[in-house]
Order: sequence, then structure tokens, then C-alpha cells
Amino acid sequence: MTGEKEILGTCPVDRGLTRVGDRWSMLVLRDVERGLTRYEQLRTSLGIAPNILSRRLAALTEAGLLKKRRYSQRPPRDEYVLTDAGCDFLPILMAIGAWGRKYNGAGALSQHFDVKTGGVVRPVVVDANTGAPIGSRPLRFEYPD
Amino acid sequence: MTGEKEILGTCPVDRGLTRVGDRWSMLVLRDVERGLTRYEQLRTSLGIAPNILSRRLAALTEAGLLKKRRYSQRPPRDEYVLTDAGCDFLPILMAIGAWGRKYNGAGALSQHFDVKTGGVVRPVVVDANTGAPIGSRPLRFEYPD
Repeated sequence: MTGEKEILGTCPVDRGLTRVGDRWSMLVLRDVERGLTRYEQLRTSLGIAPNILSRRLAALTEAGLLKKRRYSQRPPRDEYVLTDAGCDFLPILMAIGAWGRKYNGAGALSQHFDVKTGGVVRPVVVDANTGAPIGSRPLRFEYPD
Repeated sequence: MTGEKEILGTCPVDRGLTRVGDRWSMLVLRDVERGLTRYEQLRTSLGIAPNILSRRLAALTEAGLLKKRRYSQRPPRDEYVLTDAGCDFLPILMAIGAWGRKYNGAGALSQHFDVKTGGVVRPVVVDANTGAPIGSRPLRFEYPD
């Protein structure tokens, strides 16, 4: 993130977390996806301190997950929209949501539905090559040469 | 996490992130899965300050993702192992790794292979009900009643 030296290790998990590795950053992405694209909307939704929100927005922009879009010329005002990299992170948030529903899911929770089928969305991480859920087949880990 | 009041909102993403919402926590889970189950192994692997590692281990244990297992009676020594909830978080780390590979993937990276097929694992988040990757079909978001 901004202000930290980014050391490029060989682990792709760390590579991802270096770009978007804290709760506030992920919740900002969630809210922007839901249409809360302006600073005040995000501040109100998240109940976050202004300096923390500003830092997260700057870091997510620098990391390439958000970009600014000017929505008012006078006075000049920017909102934040998701880049392709930001959009590609959203399925991970859905997977975290499925985990949260399973292990910290007491009470009423929001939910996604498939528009065409009307069915509840049930996010699961699979290996695209086999279609099998990750964790259901033995995997081998290899460090790079 | 430990020391913070956990306010139960209606968003399952937030419910998940409340339990395991920072880079260090996720890297601890990654390392424990790779067999680095002891305090000193984790400290060396992560290059993390002892007090931060201790707090993360306590928080992950309290949150139910790790549990202690005594591996030495004299002197008494515990290691950390994944609970079912911790194991269920691992596919999310794989998805973050796939994102990191795509958007921050310069140079050599480690990799998972399917033991039976020998093929590279390509994690993707799908809707288990339709099999479609999340993001490839229109979804509708609903707050609870």
C-alpha cells in the first residue's frame, strides 16, 4: 500500500494482499460496486475516519483498483469507479461473504440472487481446469525455480 | 478481531472480514497450511514483529480459525493448526493468489498443481448453483427484510 515499500516475493497470495490487504480497502471496493462512488457516500456508509478513508482511496487508486472520474466541473469533484482489476477483485469479496455467512452468520444477512434463475448465489472457489472446489482434491505446492 | 467490538451488520462480507480482515492474518493462515505451525517458524517466515504475530495468533484462535495443539509436554509448547473454519478460508487465499498473479505478477511465482492431473490450479469463484463465474451473469443484491 501507499508509503510501504513493496517487496516482490514469490507468493501470489502476498502479491494480492500487498495491493488490497485490509478490511477497509475491501469494504470500500464493496461499496463502490454497490454505487457508493463518492467520498461522502463512502464515509457515511462505512463510518470511517476521514483520514483513513482518504488513505485507502489513494492506495486503491495507486494500486490500480479504483480510478477517479470527474462528475462535476464547478466545483471540481471526483468520484471513484472500479477498474478492471477492481472488478476482478469482487468475486473474492463474494467468497469472503460466503465464508462470513457460514461462520459468522447469525441473524439477518444481505444476499445476492442470480437475475435469470432467481436463485440465491452460492459463491465457491473452484479450479477452472477441473471444475472441482479448491480443497476437494489433493494439490501440490511448488516454489519457482 | 480481539479488542474490537464486533458489531453484527447485515453484510456477509463484513462478517467475514471482521474475523480475518488483514494481511498478516491471511498470511498466517497461508503459512500454517504449508506446515509452519510453530511460533518461531511463523515469525521467521513472515518477518513479523513478535507482538503483532502474537496478537494475530490470539485473534485467529479466538475467531475460531486456528486452534492450539500441544506438541511438547516438557517444556509445554503449543503449535497452531487450522480448524474447519480455517481450512474453509484457504480457497479464498487461492483466489487472492490468482488475482495477485494477474495484477501484480511480475517475475517468478510459486504455483499449485493438481496432483492427479498434473495441471496448474486456476482458482476462480463461481456460483455453485449455476457453475458460472461470479461477474459473468447479472446478479441482484437484496438487503434482508
